[in-house]
Amino acid sequence: MIVLPEKMKAIVKTGPHSGLEMTSVEVPSEKHGEILIKVRTTSICGTDLHIYRWNSWAQNRIKTTPLITGHEFAGDVVKVGEGVSGFSVGDYVTADSHIFCGHCLQCRIGQQHICSNLKILGIDINGCFAEYVSVPARGVWKNDINMPPEFASVQDPLGNALYCTLVEPVTGKSVLIIGDGPIGLFSVGVARASGASWIGLIGHNKPRLDVAKKMGADAVFHGDEEGLESSIMGRTEGTGVDVVLEMSGSAKGLEQGLNLLRKGGRLSAFGLFSNPVTVDITNQIIFKGIIIYGINGRILFDTWYRMHNLLKSGRLDISPIISHKLPFDDFEKGFELLLQRPKKAVKVVLYLE
Amino acid sequence: MIVLPEKMKAIVKTGPHSGLEMTSVEVPSEKHGEILIKVRTTSICGTDLHIYRWNSWAQNRIKTTPLITGHEFAGDVVKVGEGVSGFSVGDYVTADSHIFCGHCLQCRIGQQHICSNLKILGIDINGCFAEYVSVPARGVWKNDINMPPEFASVQDPLGNALYCTLVEPVTGKSVLIIGDGPIGLFSVGVARASGASWIGLIGHNKPRLDVAKKMGADAVFHGDEEGLESSIMGRTEGTGVDVVLEMSGSAKGLEQGLNLLRKGGRLSAFGLFSNPVTVDITNQIIFKGIIIYGINGRILFDTWYRMHNLLKSGRLDISPIISHKLPFDDFEKGFELLLQRPKKAVKVVLYLE
Amino acid sequence: MIVLPEKMKAIVKTGPHSGLEMTSVEVPSEKHGEILIKVRTTSICGTDLHIYRWNSWAQNRIKTTPLITGHEFAGDVVKVGEGVSGFSVGDYVTADSHIFCGHCLQCRIGQQHICSNLKILGIDINGCFAEYVSVPARGVWKNDINMPPEFASVQDPLGNALYCTLVEPVTGKSVLIIGDGPIGLFSVGVARASGASWIGLIGHNKPRLDVAKKMGADAVFHGDEEGLESSIMGRTEGTGVDVVLEMSGSAKGLEQGLNLLRKGGRLSAFGLFSNPVTVDITNQIIFKGIIIYGINGRILFDTWYRMHNLLKSGRLDISPIISHKLPFDDFEKGFELLLQRPKKAVKVVLYLE
Amino acid sequence: MIVLPEKMKAIVKTGPHSGLEMTSVEVPSEKHGEILIKVRTTSICGTDLHIYRWNSWAQNRIKTTPLITGHEFAGDVVKVGEGVSGFSVGDYVTADSHIFCGHCLQCRIGQQHICSNLKILGIDINGCFAEYVSVPARGVWKNDINMPPEFASVQDPLGNALYCTLVEPVTGKSVLIIGDGPIGLFSVGVARASGASWIGLIGHNKPRLDVAKKMGADAVFHGDEEGLESSIMGRTEGTGVDVVLEMSGSAKGLEQGLNLLRKGGRLSAFGLFSNPVTVDITNQIIFKGIIIYGINGRILFDTWYRMHNLLKSGRLDISPIISHKLPFDDFEKGFELLLQRPKKAVKVVLYLE
Repeated sequence: MIVLPEKMKAIVKTGPHSGLEMTSVEVPSEKHGEILIKVRTTSICGTDLHIYRWNSWAQNRIKTTPLITGHEFAGDVVKVGEGVSGFSVGDYVTADSHIFCGHCLQCRIGQQHICSNLKILGIDINGCFAEYVSVPARGVWKNDINMPPEFASVQDPLGNALYCTLVEPVTGKSVLIIGDGPIGLFSVGVARASGASWIGLIGHNKPRLDVAKKMGADAVFHGDEEGLESSIMGRTEGTGVDVVLEMSGSAKGLEQGLNLLRKGGRLSAFGLFSNPVTVDITNQIIFKGIIIYGINGRILFDTWYRMHNLLKSGRLDISPIISHKLPFDDFEKGFELLLQRPKKAVKVVLYLE
Repeated sequence: MIVLPEKMKAIVKTGPHSGLEMTSVEVPSEKHGEILIKVRTTSICGTDLHIYRWNSWAQNRIKTTPLITGHEFAGDVVKVGEGVSGFSVGDYVTADSHIFCGHCLQCRIGQQHICSNLKILGIDINGCFAEYVSVPARGVWKNDINMPPEFASVQDPLGNALYCTLVEPVTGKSVLIIGDGPIGLFSVGVARASGASWIGLIGHNKPRLDVAKKMGADAVFHGDEEGLESSIMGRTEGTGVDVVLEMSGSAKGLEQGLNLLRKGGRLSAFGLFSNPVTVDITNQIIFKGIIIYGINGRILFDTWYRMHNLLKSGRLDISPIISHKLPFDDFEKGFELLLQRPKKAVKVVLYLE
Repeated sequence: MIVLPEKMKAIVKTGPHSGLEMTSVEVPSEKHGEILIKVRTTSICGTDLHIYRWNSWAQNRIKTTPLITGHEFAGDVVKVGEGVSGFSVGDYVTADSHIFCGHCLQCRIGQQHICSNLKILGIDINGCFAEYVSVPARGVWKNDINMPPEFASVQDPLGNALYCTLVEPVTGKSVLIIGDGPIGLFSVGVARASGASWIGLIGHNKPRLDVAKKMGADAVFHGDEEGLESSIMGRTEGTGVDVVLEMSGSAKGLEQGLNLLRKGGRLSAFGLFSNPVTVDITNQIIFKGIIIYGINGRILFDTWYRMHNLLKSGRLDISPIISHKLPFDDFEKGFELLLQRPKKAVKVVLYLE
Repeated sequence: MIVLPEKMKAIVKTGPHSGLEMTSVEVPSEKHGEILIKVRTTSICGTDLHIYRWNSWAQNRIKTTPLITGHEFAGDVVKVGEGVSGFSVGDYVTADSHIFCGHCLQCRIGQQHICSNLKILGIDINGCFAEYVSVPARGVWKNDINMPPEFASVQDPLGNALYCTLVEPVTGKSVLIIGDGPIGLFSVGVARASGASWIGLIGHNKPRLDVAKKMGADAVFHGDEEGLESSIMGRTEGTGVDVVLEMSGSAKGLEQGLNLLRKGGRLSAFGLFSNPVTVDITNQIIFKGIIIYGINGRILFDTWYRMHNLLKSGRLDISPIISHKLPFDDFEKGFELLLQRPKKAVKVVLYLE
């Protein structure tokens, strides 16, 4: 039997102000239906940067402090709560950050990722920037035992990319990704592994455009580049691209995407816009006969199943995106790296062992 | 053999100014791949009103005059052009108003309705407000011989409604239609025939809300009604509706639709907006995980096949929408009826025989 | 607080021999994750007849006796087990008879109805022919409080019909149902409510063919009728039907279905065949380019959601199928009615209150 | 202007007996709607072998002789018939071998590949084993000008493979291909390019199993291998494979496929069976809840569009399958190579220039 300590290290938002602190807190206990996980690796998301900086979004969104932050991780099951089946101590797992209720309409008809009572790990409830985390078993996925913990840790954003990219098939189709954040870069890899015939990415950070190339992009573009749109039209025999993945959350990015999407194409909207956006619905959506998917989270567990298979088989190699590996104690350095401009770091993984 | 006259009556936009004139013009001759049709009935669309009034849309859109207007009709084949197979003199037919090229990418992959070289009957080329019209056979559908000509004539807008409503199944789902134009009213009938479990319609014209009820709406709402949104939420067990059909082309209508659509729901955007619209993409599209379909035209010929079957079987009765039947010569009266406010007339069918 | 008795009446297969006995057994207690339900109504399925008669199928399939049989019911929650959320005492509910594990691959990717560790209520575990039944909450659906208990009770077979019929849309399509059992008859109603443009049913029992007509069939056929196939081809403009629902489990029925299905059509295979069947795959499946769906169970809970909406709205009226309503104590009479030949009874509902 | 000769070389079935003869015949003239193509390359299909050997299938299927055989080719447009738009002299093209009527129900609703009046090039009408061939423009696809003619020539069978493999997405899924003919081997490549996470192939010819590996198979199996089924189950975590492509047309292959397919999986049936086959529908199809697609031809032109993109982009390299390149005059040698046992040759391409 595993003997657990009473206290653990955790990265905590201690109050309504900027910064995060490594403190000692109680090890959580698993409730009914939950499993307690010892964290091996955890990784930093853009959302964590908002919370760290305590920007206006974070001030509005975070309801209570102190709060253990973080929602990306991999670890090992150390305790299995009552009423849980299908998990054992020692299982190597990752949880989806979307904690769903399991009984609302959406949960019951296969849309758990947009549960009506959705809670987000590390935002609405204590997260995984800690030695231990307890989560409902219904949202936990068993990793392949040989999966490197830095890969297992980033499945939450990789799953966003996979759902977003593959909500309709891309094999033999052209895909344009707008935005050079980690999820845009993951999407390049997913599109490439899935046989997209042309993959372009528009971004604003040279080092990240280089990562896009390593992930398999056929062409990368700086968003301010002159003649960008006509250049991309030229590469698609003048029809426009079959698929656009909007991952910039910028009005300009969306406009470029809608301009470049071919009649009858598909756009996945993933990047969050700070403000409402003006859209020419008549000409860009209706007359072009396009489909727009609002994408949030990952399909539980269809996305996870296919992600697991792609990673395990080696069809998808995400190592170019793991830009930094640091000890958990050096979390401050991780945040600093990600806050540097121009953006160079992509995914920072923190190791707890 | 059918002997054709040299001249025929036609309703013509004679120049860049308001109004339409009944004049005598040459009977068209069928080109390669075309069939010549003697028109039995033709019906007036909102687009024809724009052309009649010569509003700014019409001024920008109509490239050449004189132009025979009109794009909704039913008639009988009188001549079959060279290279046409599958049609014979005497066939009772209707043409899709979307004249597609047949060889662009969209045409080749089943998206003829958004052909890259699309021409619209009665807008880009001479239309069907005439005794005869010649159209490419590839866009013509054979009607059931027992179909009343007023029903056959309005299949173009009915097909819009059918495509828009059934782009995803509605059986056992709640459907909210925004807009009380003919296509909104047709959509009520399509949704009802298809087993939608609750059908609401929001409009602004009392007489048309009455037609919506006759078509099978469970509830109708005046768009300015106080408490409209909470009333509709109440009827869907608080989750919002499964499906929204946006057919108003108004910013307010779209906003109501997005507010009332449930998480994971589907919105079909059909109504044309005069101007770009501001949309809260983050909260209304992404976090809600919805799908938006831009809808234009009808699927050739999947929409026509199912429409044919619904009409022939009597599962769908569209007679409440055919508000007026007039002789062709009384077309001015038809336009006047449709221009009256508050809107009372819905579909005016003109008879040529 | 509800005080429960210690003993209850139940219809039990007491040992490996024909017949069922009403006996007094202990009221079950709800385990973790389960809810205890007081049964209002329960209904008899063809499977229960097999168990009653103890035919070869039953002898092979039933692993242990004594066993409380029955899997169709409606009732009220009287106790909520630990770890259950979303249910309260007093909820009016029905359970899916497919008891799924919740953690196998199929359960995790939305295919709980074909769970790898599937157990069937009243076959693998104690069923609902009893005053109380305890089932896992994850498979329970809340009924509308106004739903008549005889309707709520038969949602298991009605759900089969709905899943089978609507696995692809039928609106505006022709549907041929082969088999006149309760699920075939329910399917007529589902197809009719969903806007199928022509509905035919082939059966062998005159009284049930009459029920098919009441449910909305456009035409019914005796399976041995001469010229049946050419008659049906004639009603579909010579192309064959768009959709076949095979619900007879007979080789002849399947052959008729494949002959009558049009090129590019869809067949749902639901009826169980006692033996392997010889199929002309080359000509009937490949050259015709058809799709075959093997259908078992109901989609949890997409099927239930749409069924709930169809019943609540009154779009689907299943009363012609509820042929007999009996007190629970008269179960023997119910079985006798269903074993009479020619088949006349369709659905027998037993009332416990 | 291109001056055409009066006579051309063609490989002809001269009468109802075995063998094929190279003879001199008249150059065909393009009818209305057709284009005349000068053949660059043509390739030999298994069907051509049947015709060559004049086996019982060929004796029943070929209605008239003399007949120019062959249906796989690439060439250049030399004359454009009346009524044709979208093609010009000099276009580098390939035709789909399925000559569809364009006006039956199937043709009109996007199922041209299973047209009710289907004719096959080189079987029902004169084919492409000739210097020139004339075909309806509606079934012709423009190749990328840089596509090697041996690749362009084999798009008919490659398109079968693509349609069969991608009728539902395979990214992140396991795929088992049964049969080592050219289409099975092409399917390995398509599955690999599309991100299938595990690809196995069962065949009977060692040299072709080697080609399967070159195309990207993770594992190949001899069909008679002991323990084959348990070995494959082991590679899919015990659940069975997600997708089976049945390309052997053998009862044993189908049985293996159904045994190895997981619950809820998908099987594409492509290989033609000489005789009806006995199938355990209850246990293998219904209780497993699988979907079976009968696959014939290619989707016009969705399949062609994606194939074009995959080949042009280099995502799919089919060179390992082009086993032999011969001058057109050496066609006899090509047939001999393909008739040798054990099967070693895969695709023989004949060059006319």
